[in-house]
Amino acid sequence: MKVIRGMKEEIIMEKKGLLIVVSGPSGAGKGTICKTLARLNPDIKISISATTREPRRGETDGENYYFISKGNFEGMLQENALLEYAKVYDNYYGTPKKYVLENLEKGNDILLEIDIAGALQVKEKFQDGVFIFILPPSLEELKNRIVGRGTESEKDIEKRYGCAIEEIEQVIKYDYAVVNDDIERATKDVEAIIRAEKCKVTRVQDNIKSIF
Amino acid sequence: MKVIRGMKEEIIMEKKGLLIVVSGPSGAGKGTICKTLARLNPDIKISISATTREPRRGETDGENYYFISKGNFEGMLQENALLEYAKVYDNYYGTPKKYVLENLEKGNDILLEIDIAGALQVKEKFQDGVFIFILPPSLEELKNRIVGRGTESEKDIEKRYGCAIEEIEQVIKYDYAVVNDDIERATKDVEAIIRAEKCKVTRVQDNIKSIF
Repeated sequence: MKVIRGMKEEIIMEKKGLLIVVSGPSGAGKGTICKTLARLNPDIKISISATTREPRRGETDGENYYFISKGNFEGMLQENALLEYAKVYDNYYGTPKKYVLENLEKGNDILLEIDIAGALQVKEKFQDGVFIFILPPSLEELKNRIVGRGTESEKDIEKRYGCAIEEIEQVIKYDYAVVNDDIERATKDVEAIIRAEKCKVTRVQDNIKSIF
Repeated sequence: MKVIRGMKEEIIMEKKGLLIVVSGPSGAGKGTICKTLARLNPDIKISISATTREPRRGETDGENYYFISKGNFEGMLQENALLEYAKVYDNYYGTPKKYVLENLEKGNDILLEIDIAGALQVKEKFQDGVFIFILPPSLEELKNRIVGRGTESEKDIEKRYGCAIEEIEQVIKYDYAVVNDDIERATKDVEAIIRAEKCKVTRVQDNIKSIF
């Protein structure tokens, strides 16, 4: 809550939370940008996805994902308790709605790091969200990064790379495009976008009107 | 010009200059914010207005204003050489078009610090500009600042204050509203807005499309 004092009467600037969706093809570096952003801005809440897949080595429940059963996930689907979801091979992935909505209500900014299909599902429900697409500096560099992870087979790499190229075309459905040629610079772009969005007249309009 | 290498072919990201219009009621502090912004960002070009009024003590031609004759100003009007203009009492004030357009063409960002009526004239011609409204933290503080200048009579102060209140209602025609409760914080808001605008998909769309 931001209070402007001394106007005709005291004006309460209702601080609505921002829904910040950071998305982009696999290998563009959205994960690293979001981690850096969260570290530098501890006030931003991070949405944690739910999944039915098994935890990989080093992954922690409630930190990397909420690891839940297929039955539980399908229950959430029936209750319309997910902002977006996908079924990849035999596993579900999705964003629980409750945590996101509760934080926005409280005026907290919330960050969703999700894939492109998921982001576009969220956009249908939250036109008011801030949709940021992370672009790799080049297609060559994108391929290097996918290979560099070392977690996937040759076939999976080729598949991911092919998908990534198709996915980049979706950038035109987003509000902002940030080229991740340098983590620090790209993170500063995202920080600037969040700061600027909070100054948008369409977001503070009602409060300004109430001055008069 | 920003070059992305290694895509299917070399992509030239045409860096279009941004037209940044900083405006607000008299006493909101737009002048101080623009001076701070220009000092911290020497790449941003400042548009200098032309006027037919006499220079005040300490004002320099080509720095505060271009001080020109009434005949010259009316000549510019006939040639449609002004982006916006106003006649205040017996004096003209206006923004010469040439310098602004030349810099935008070159890819330079250009800053216009102008009053609200002028900004709205510019908006009719440049929907693509970034229109930022500087708000005083309170109406009380606004009055203090107008009085504090010490350059105007009691009557002028009352008139300016009355106008300022009417003018604040125009904020809804702008893209962004920045509350000037602290010069440093407000300047950072404006810097973030400029940085974020450069990431807007609508601004870089054509270049991203050309990747494919």
